[in-house]
Amino acid sequence: MARERDILDRLRRFATDPAARELSDDVALLDGLIITHDTIAEGVHFLSSDPAASVGWKLVAVNLSDLAAKGATPRGALLSLTITGDDQWEADFLTGIEAACESYALPLIGGDTIALPQGAPRVLGLTAIGRAGAHVPHRGGGQPGDTLWLVGTLGDSAAGLALLRDDPRSAGPLVDVFRRPIPQLEAGRALAPHAHGMMDVSDGLLLDASRMAEASGCAALIDLDALPLSPAFIDARGDSRGSRLFAATGGDDYALLAALAPEIDPSTLSLPSETTIARIGSLNAGEPGIRLVSGGQPIELPEILGHEHHGLSAAPMADRP
Amino acid sequence: MARERDILDRLRRFATDPAARELSDDVALLDGLIITHDTIAEGVHFLSSDPAASVGWKLVAVNLSDLAAKGATPRGALLSLTITGDDQWEADFLTGIEAACESYALPLIGGDTIALPQGAPRVLGLTAIGRAGAHVPHRGGGQPGDTLWLVGTLGDSAAGLALLRDDPRSAGPLVDVFRRPIPQLEAGRALAPHAHGMMDVSDGLLLDASRMAEASGCAALIDLDALPLSPAFIDARGDSRGSRLFAATGGDDYALLAALAPEIDPSTLSLPSETTIARIGSLNAGEPGIRLVSGGQPIELPEILGHEHHGLSAAPMADRP
Repeated sequence: MARERDILDRLRRFATDPAARELSDDVALLDGLIITHDTIAEGVHFLSSDPAASVGWKLVAVNLSDLAAKGATPRGALLSLTITGDDQWEADFLTGIEAACESYALPLIGGDTIALPQGAPRVLGLTAIGRAGAHVPHRGGGQPGDTLWLVGTLGDSAAGLALLRDDPRSAGPLVDVFRRPIPQLEAGRALAPHAHGMMDVSDGLLLDASRMAEASGCAALIDLDALPLSPAFIDARGDSRGSRLFAATGGDDYALLAALAPEIDPSTLSLPSETTIARIGSLNAGEPGIRLVSGGQPIELPEILGHEHHGLSAAPMADRP
Repeated sequence: MARERDILDRLRRFATDPAARELSDDVALLDGLIITHDTIAEGVHFLSSDPAASVGWKLVAVNLSDLAAKGATPRGALLSLTITGDDQWEADFLTGIEAACESYALPLIGGDTIALPQGAPRVLGLTAIGRAGAHVPHRGGGQPGDTLWLVGTLGDSAAGLALLRDDPRSAGPLVDVFRRPIPQLEAGRALAPHAHGMMDVSDGLLLDASRMAEASGCAALIDLDALPLSPAFIDARGDSRGSRLFAATGGDDYALLAALAPEIDPSTLSLPSETTIARIGSLNAGEPGIRLVSGGQPIELPEILGHEHHGLSAAPMADRP
């Protein structure tokens, strides 16, 4: 992944406009609008066997998750659709796009349709635009002494993907989370005014938390035992150190990670009633990076903290020896 | 292309937000910002043998051409970059992106990098954002009695592509235009306040003029003899009815087509001094569509008016029997 880091370093030297937020926040901020773009590719971000409608849903949801992490309200989307000649696939894909857009009040306002060469993997992009609130928390805004909170559960999507890799006909709640992630828009809006730092967890909690720590110039401490797991995840993989490390590195969670001043109690904020939110650690003064504890004892970080597969975002793990 | 039209019809029923401009203007307009997205694919919009830097330039230029057609001033871009493992190609591509961004004062403010499966054709996208002026001409704003003006010359790019198809080592001004089109930003800003309708010519003049005519509910009359050809084009292909029809349908021109009230003389507007602008026809009351004249006589339309290869834009020719 040194190559991706080289590219990012180069782009960052060039992207000096304040709207770029140093290309380290997954979004741009221009005239009060939050703008983000995510592209997904067949065989990389989704499986050829995934239902097309769920691919459409996921494309919208992963972009909305970036808006959620900035506390933004969806305002419009531009779709980049590649047409490969499978009419039914494309019709179903659009059904998923429309369902997600309607669910989250995201109007489709433009885009592009292009042909691809025969047999090329599908590549689908979406630019999502949201209206920013008064405070747009940067991932690098965390401060020593902040508590780290996680909205959502971890590992469901990675467990669902593992089931699908074993058997593409797999079904159930874990597969559903992999295919149809839920962007935490309301929780994001409730937390944003109070968050020093916030980002979505898309590439694995440990990787994303390390990015927040690096960008904030803090040492992050994560309590493995505090990570929220769903009943479906525990049913499938148990609740052990191994399963928790799997959940902490699996990626595709679209949870939110927020750094809040220690005096803030999220239960006093106007979070949706069904929100799963857990205190999972803290930011502290010290060498920027991440440390992990379990049972009150430091434990070794896994070799792979997550997936560096997308995003014009900091990739500090590429710096590790 | 019925399939693409079906998709557009479906999206248009769904994209009812005013910012979408009925998905018939190549751009969205939100909070005074013009937003457009164009994706280009290897083997469809550029050749594998094209220098990577020119591919980067072209990706920026084709998006800026959409901003030019709305009279917008570039404000920011989000790049969607697929990484395929050829470091030199990607470095050169970014050199082209940076050159175009610097030439047209377009800050890079965000985006996404993703991996593609081994051997997949490159797919590269850009979302360009510009600040709108007081009047944003819609392509459908033309009125009966308007004169049609073209900024730029026609056919150079298509002639350059034909040379490259014969011999990938071809060079010269026509190849340069194919590889490094020039967005007409200043001319677009000068014309926009006065234009009833405006659009860029990317898919072939006859096709794009027919789209303007349909969207404006007017009959367009185009004088084949009035179409501006460059000396390089005439050197290569001569000045005949055949070469003019080639130029009128070739596409990839990134010229501007403007419908102006007949009393407006563009030479009195603040166009850049080197601007090539020609009066090429008129809009009139009557059945929406396009007619062609040469030597003062009506001539038959060619069977293919242009390339319906991209854009969430009206594709009225698919309606033709």
